[in-house]
Amino acid sequence: MEAVLGRVSLVAATGSRSVVVGDSKVKSGTGWFSGGSVVVLPVTAKLQRRERLYRSVAAKLATDNASASTSATMDAAVPRTGGLIEPDGGVLVDLHVPEQEKESKRAEAATLPRIQLAKVDLEWVHTVAEGWASPLTGFMRQSEYLQALHFNCLRLPDGSFVNMSLPIVLSIDDEKKESLAGVTAVTLVGPDGNDVAILRNIEIYKHNKEERIARTWGTTASGLPYVDEAIANAGNWLVGGDLEVLERIKYNDGLDHYRLSPAELRAEFERREADAVFAFQLRNPVHNGHALLMTDTRRRLLDMGYKNPILLLHPLGGYTKADDVPLEWRMKQHDEVLEAGVLDPATTVVAIFPSPMHYAGPTEVQWHAKARINAGADFYIVGRDPAGMGHPTAGRDLYDADHGKMVLSMAPGLERLNILPFRVAAYDKTQSQMAFFDPSRAQDFLFISGTKMRNFAKNNELPPEGFMCPGGWQVLVDYYQGLQKQESA
Amino acid sequence: MEAVLGRVSLVAATGSRSVVVGDSKVKSGTGWFSGGSVVVLPVTAKLQRRERLYRSVAAKLATDNASASTSATMDAAVPRTGGLIEPDGGVLVDLHVPEQEKESKRAEAATLPRIQLAKVDLEWVHTVAEGWASPLTGFMRQSEYLQALHFNCLRLPDGSFVNMSLPIVLSIDDEKKESLAGVTAVTLVGPDGNDVAILRNIEIYKHNKEERIARTWGTTASGLPYVDEAIANAGNWLVGGDLEVLERIKYNDGLDHYRLSPAELRAEFERREADAVFAFQLRNPVHNGHALLMTDTRRRLLDMGYKNPILLLHPLGGYTKADDVPLEWRMKQHDEVLEAGVLDPATTVVAIFPSPMHYAGPTEVQWHAKARINAGADFYIVGRDPAGMGHPTAGRDLYDADHGKMVLSMAPGLERLNILPFRVAAYDKTQSQMAFFDPSRAQDFLFISGTKMRNFAKNNELPPEGFMCPGGWQVLVDYYQGLQKQESA
Repeated sequence: MEAVLGRVSLVAATGSRSVVVGDSKVKSGTGWFSGGSVVVLPVTAKLQRRERLYRSVAAKLATDNASASTSATMDAAVPRTGGLIEPDGGVLVDLHVPEQEKESKRAEAATLPRIQLAKVDLEWVHTVAEGWASPLTGFMRQSEYLQALHFNCLRLPDGSFVNMSLPIVLSIDDEKKESLAGVTAVTLVGPDGNDVAILRNIEIYKHNKEERIARTWGTTASGLPYVDEAIANAGNWLVGGDLEVLERIKYNDGLDHYRLSPAELRAEFERREADAVFAFQLRNPVHNGHALLMTDTRRRLLDMGYKNPILLLHPLGGYTKADDVPLEWRMKQHDEVLEAGVLDPATTVVAIFPSPMHYAGPTEVQWHAKARINAGADFYIVGRDPAGMGHPTAGRDLYDADHGKMVLSMAPGLERLNILPFRVAAYDKTQSQMAFFDPSRAQDFLFISGTKMRNFAKNNELPPEGFMCPGGWQVLVDYYQGLQKQESA
Repeated sequence: MEAVLGRVSLVAATGSRSVVVGDSKVKSGTGWFSGGSVVVLPVTAKLQRRERLYRSVAAKLATDNASASTSATMDAAVPRTGGLIEPDGGVLVDLHVPEQEKESKRAEAATLPRIQLAKVDLEWVHTVAEGWASPLTGFMRQSEYLQALHFNCLRLPDGSFVNMSLPIVLSIDDEKKESLAGVTAVTLVGPDGNDVAILRNIEIYKHNKEERIARTWGTTASGLPYVDEAIANAGNWLVGGDLEVLERIKYNDGLDHYRLSPAELRAEFERREADAVFAFQLRNPVHNGHALLMTDTRRRLLDMGYKNPILLLHPLGGYTKADDVPLEWRMKQHDEVLEAGVLDPATTVVAIFPSPMHYAGPTEVQWHAKARINAGADFYIVGRDPAGMGHPTAGRDLYDADHGKMVLSMAPGLERLNILPFRVAAYDKTQSQMAFFDPSRAQDFLFISGTKMRNFAKNNELPPEGFMCPGGWQVLVDYYQGLQKQESA
């Protein structure tokens, strides 16, 4: 299967942007993956350079990384000489109203029917407005919703696909739906009562919650965090349309300066003259195992001839479940990690990804990867059971730990992204530090789960030396101790 | 949305087989569907002809048919001069063992570990062996399973997609899985105890039933017929591999002569010199409303310049739920309809589609359409709520009645197929016959549901004159009367 996956992903690296000439028929009975001779004619020289690069890079890293995602032999690495990876659809979407139109749009907004946004809705307005979901230009209409739900991708006018695995939708109740009969534009009102955006050319369609949940999570078990937060009590209708956002979304929590838009991130990568950008999505504190992985990835990119690979350390900043470490504490912890020099500030950009978390495993990890393409990342590090969690009712993990990585390597619309499967790091007792797990001496390694880590911190015990930088660890201790005080109070 | 759908489907007609040159960027803020100028370079002249045809035909029919699926204006119809539509993957799969190898394969089969097939498993062996699922060459391995489950399509080595919306899988229990450690080939044993096939290069992987059901049906409610029949009590493991089928599957129910393979259907269409083949999937008796739709479709194809459009009347022959009319009675009814001349035998091919029924609505209708491409059909008639049923626990339809048609027009891998949305036919009391529903005089029409029809037959009442040919109606009366005798006995 690894070999097959390799071929699937290899094709992916050239697939949607190429034309195939000559006999590409599948020979009957020889197994459907085995094609005839295939000649790939790149569409443009730039694309040619980029595709050769992707394929060679992916192959090189795959070899180093014992990765399943691309195992074929490839021509030598050719670092990119051009700019950053193109956003999905070719142009980065920006849905903020231009300065000179703000006054008139505000005036118009004051006259339109209003829809009240919940906190998560506002996070989606923020995410879509900045172009993380490019080329999406608003909340999904039914045709986009159905493509996301059934195919995890959207078809562009040129017939190619962009990935889009999560429905990005806005729900309204029956009463609101009635009140909008014949209406074409509405004003979206933030939780604080301010006008946030105009939603234009709206389309209202049924919100079949059961079907949405089943197809997105692969279960309808009660207790899915995002479902409880944003779907269970939502209305029976969805309203799609094009967004015109009046002001940039701010949270005034002292972290807004971390909330860089895809355009700002791209500018920063260009300023640093990055010739490779590798993204690391996380919603947990960074321990030295993560750090090892990130520094090792950079080392290998350098070995391949890249001059200046930049790490995008990209904690998720939207809705997370109650037992995750809150954003502000995670950001403090990440600061300590950089101050301690565990990660090199000169080659690391720390920013907040504004999307809410679904905990939808293989379906959601595609969104996490796709959004980073739009921010300029051409490498994506994927771990074990990405965006996964325990099954809310059955006593097991909700998703197969390998499916996220596999689905990511197959996903339509992610062909241009190099998927870098996570190498398992654990605490090496013989070296008193985090190291890549070596099965040949398994007994030397100690696996420290999130739960184990939490318990250390709660009980103010120190984790093994070398597990996490002391400053970063202290942040967690402070957080969990404070939490216990609250609980006991 | 209709306009958008139109463009989606229109793009579909040229998508996966073309290369796009020039500026195909999506202009920021103009709505993601609006692309720039796009030049399509057909890959081959034959393809060029075919694509022009597809697009023009689809547009023409869409106009006649008030269809949502392709509404743009198009160049004039150009009937195909070449052969039938290509099967998915380019070559029709045939997994039957060649005559000269049968002896050796039988001998080998006798020596291999054995897996017992249930009735539905055998129906899948039959379906896959004849190439309905081309280019699939056996039961799915995990990489194919995951692509079907998450993307409803499989990626080919050339980067293009074929549609594959249902997992076609074989389950085994824990004990069997243990016993197959290290085994590479197994013999599949039919319900009657005969060796049916060798499954080669097997791969065993987890069978997460909940996830499979949720992603396939969009619900996990208990009472889904296929789930109760084939999944609920199935093993916790799936075994994929390449099929080598020892003998053609026969049922010896007097209907095997109707079970034409895709190759046999293609030969028949060629023999009749069909220049268009339109498929009608059904699992119910044919009333005059269906007949009207089929004859009207042929008329319109003739108007467009086709010389000899052939109808494939294609009842599903595999597993169906208990309250559907059994296959043998449906076939009797279809015979009567042809004998009565309601459908013209000269331009109609009646055959049995061997697949089992999932009742999975928008997900399953893609399979129904895809399989017919492999049998040579380039037009597919889709009705209201295809492959749908009532929700097993909630008091509503399981699927939105329009989603099947919409999803079909968007589905990756179905670009080459012309989707013909069903026009609603009802009993016109002013003409005492079935006619296309005219909303401007709704009061003149009588809708006769399947339930209503069943009740007429059960109570030996005649339906309105002109609803169904008398011979066909008598078959239903005989069936339901016999059923009641059984029940009362």
